[in-house]
Amino acid sequence: MLVWRLTDLLAEMQRVKARVDDLILNQLLPNSSSIREVDLLYRMMRDYPARQAKGMRPFLCVTTCRAAGGHEDDALLTASCIELFQNWILIHDDIEDGSELRRGEPSLHRKYGEALSLNTGDALHARTWEAILTNKKRLGLERTFAVMEEFSQMVNKTTEGQHMELGWVVGGRWDLKEKDYYEMCTRKTSWYTVASPCRLGAIVAGEGGDVLDRLREFGISLGIAFQIQDDSLNLAGDQKKYGKAKSDDILEGKRTLILLHLLAVASQSERDKVISIMNRKREAKTAADVAFVMSLINKYDAIGFARKRAAELMKEALTTLNGIRWKGDRDAAEMLTSFARFAVEREW
Amino acid sequence: MLVWRLTDLLAEMQRVKARVDDLILNQLLPNSSSIREVDLLYRMMRDYPARQAKGMRPFLCVTTCRAAGGHEDDALLTASCIELFQNWILIHDDIEDGSELRRGEPSLHRKYGEALSLNTGDALHARTWEAILTNKKRLGLERTFAVMEEFSQMVNKTTEGQHMELGWVVGGRWDLKEKDYYEMCTRKTSWYTVASPCRLGAIVAGEGGDVLDRLREFGISLGIAFQIQDDSLNLAGDQKKYGKAKSDDILEGKRTLILLHLLAVASQSERDKVISIMNRKREAKTAADVAFVMSLINKYDAIGFARKRAAELMKEALTTLNGIRWKGDRDAAEMLTSFARFAVEREW
Repeated sequence: MLVWRLTDLLAEMQRVKARVDDLILNQLLPNSSSIREVDLLYRMMRDYPARQAKGMRPFLCVTTCRAAGGHEDDALLTASCIELFQNWILIHDDIEDGSELRRGEPSLHRKYGEALSLNTGDALHARTWEAILTNKKRLGLERTFAVMEEFSQMVNKTTEGQHMELGWVVGGRWDLKEKDYYEMCTRKTSWYTVASPCRLGAIVAGEGGDVLDRLREFGISLGIAFQIQDDSLNLAGDQKKYGKAKSDDILEGKRTLILLHLLAVASQSERDKVISIMNRKREAKTAADVAFVMSLINKYDAIGFARKRAAELMKEALTTLNGIRWKGDRDAAEMLTSFARFAVEREW
Repeated sequence: MLVWRLTDLLAEMQRVKARVDDLILNQLLPNSSSIREVDLLYRMMRDYPARQAKGMRPFLCVTTCRAAGGHEDDALLTASCIELFQNWILIHDDIEDGSELRRGEPSLHRKYGEALSLNTGDALHARTWEAILTNKKRLGLERTFAVMEEFSQMVNKTTEGQHMELGWVVGGRWDLKEKDYYEMCTRKTSWYTVASPCRLGAIVAGEGGDVLDRLREFGISLGIAFQIQDDSLNLAGDQKKYGKAKSDDILEGKRTLILLHLLAVASQSERDKVISIMNRKREAKTAADVAFVMSLINKYDAIGFARKRAAELMKEALTTLNGIRWKGDRDAAEMLTSFARFAVEREW
């Protein structure tokens, strides 16, 4: 069994991303029917896509397509649509969370204000569907439809997950169990990060039924593991590599597995103090507040607990993945396995 | 030539709207895969669609379909998608503009906060595409694709128009001519209010080429006329009938034709004072500020000027409409003509 090295995987992600970026950035140019007044809209639509990113989702789409016996070129447009989707959802997510940084630079609404940025997200959302429609030339009507149906499911799940997470913050809810976190993560992260990118690649390659079911299971487990690792990096990662503002999740009052575990094991008085800090508005949280929460996270090794869960979920994901009988490129299939490991062990 | 009375037209709009509402509100229910945590999301998605509205756009879609020789039932789903589109764009528009009222009730973000409301708009946007996809059972793949392509164009135009209008406010721009207003209105209003609803009805009925071109022209002229009337009602209409907060456009700093005309004909000192008021943030505008701007609007009869332009545009629209050789229901074609008159003479 060939095991891929991290550097080779990262290089492969960048290779696919470069191809996808070509498609995206060319689509997001003013065209003959545009007027000068909308130049800024196009500049804003290209802003996030032009920033450095891992390119994990297009990689998963293209690689699964190859593993399932399809051609990379057939999956490129769909992969670029996943990337477009990711970019508009990030624009809106940053507004909803009041995030300051994205991929190491100020978030779009910090640069251009909320109104124009919200509308830019909508414009990019529409471009996502516009781009998917052009798949018909290469994939034909039937398969393009199947791609759109998966996309539609993916957006529905993501907005449901986003609603759950935001609703907990708005509602001041802390009566949450590990299971609630998994339900939220499955919707908010797993579908659009792993399950749908893989399933879309398989659909483009002509796969159906059993393989799609297994990719859903694989994607849900690995997506949650990925999110847990993301939450851990938010609190304990190297900000330069990670690209978001450190401890943003505490400022935003996020219900991460780390926080939920802390609340489950801390003393009553510690729990009360953590909740009262977490419930304050972003602006009202001081550096000392964040340091206090972090000290308890360290005292109870809540990050260690979360990482253990992530490792378990990753193993489940690998078991599911190994049960798939691929019809295509063996190398690509191995790459998926190696990727699953790295996604949980990554520092970026 | 049969001329329709306003009451009959309004009754017809309500008849179509009731059928469309059935489809929409049934689609926006939690399904078997939903969990209790997302109940509020569904309630929020149903909020605007369940409020009273004119139902103009679905009426145009269904009526054009019948005039073009198609069956009403074939156009219903597409008509309901236009209504879904209208609802998500209003949710986001209200956030972008900071609007307080919508259809006579508090705007969604006033009820639930901006973060959850923004996400609800995204969720509804996705449901729009999901619903369009289900057209394939009735219309087949080819025609469903044509519907989606028109939809995609409609959303692109609308977000471009929204960008122009917001960009003028954010940029403090007042160096605008009548022509700029028409360019903005064409994108922001005409496409999704008249051009695309009519064209979608025609597409469902199997029309193409010349009829679609004429409907675009018709829709652009009538859409601008409709927006001018909307701007006039915002300043001079009966708030109960109109459903939005009176003079909101002044508070929001909107560049309406009325304002642009006022700036073109007022004295230098009047112009300076109007611009300094309009450039203030919403919260900083007093009742006296609004009254001052209104007094100048009345002094120069800027609303009268705008209404004259609207009447001219409506005539152009009617000339274009009369050039279409309809293959279908004569009654429906006459209804479109009568509608065009009422859209500009309306008080609601």
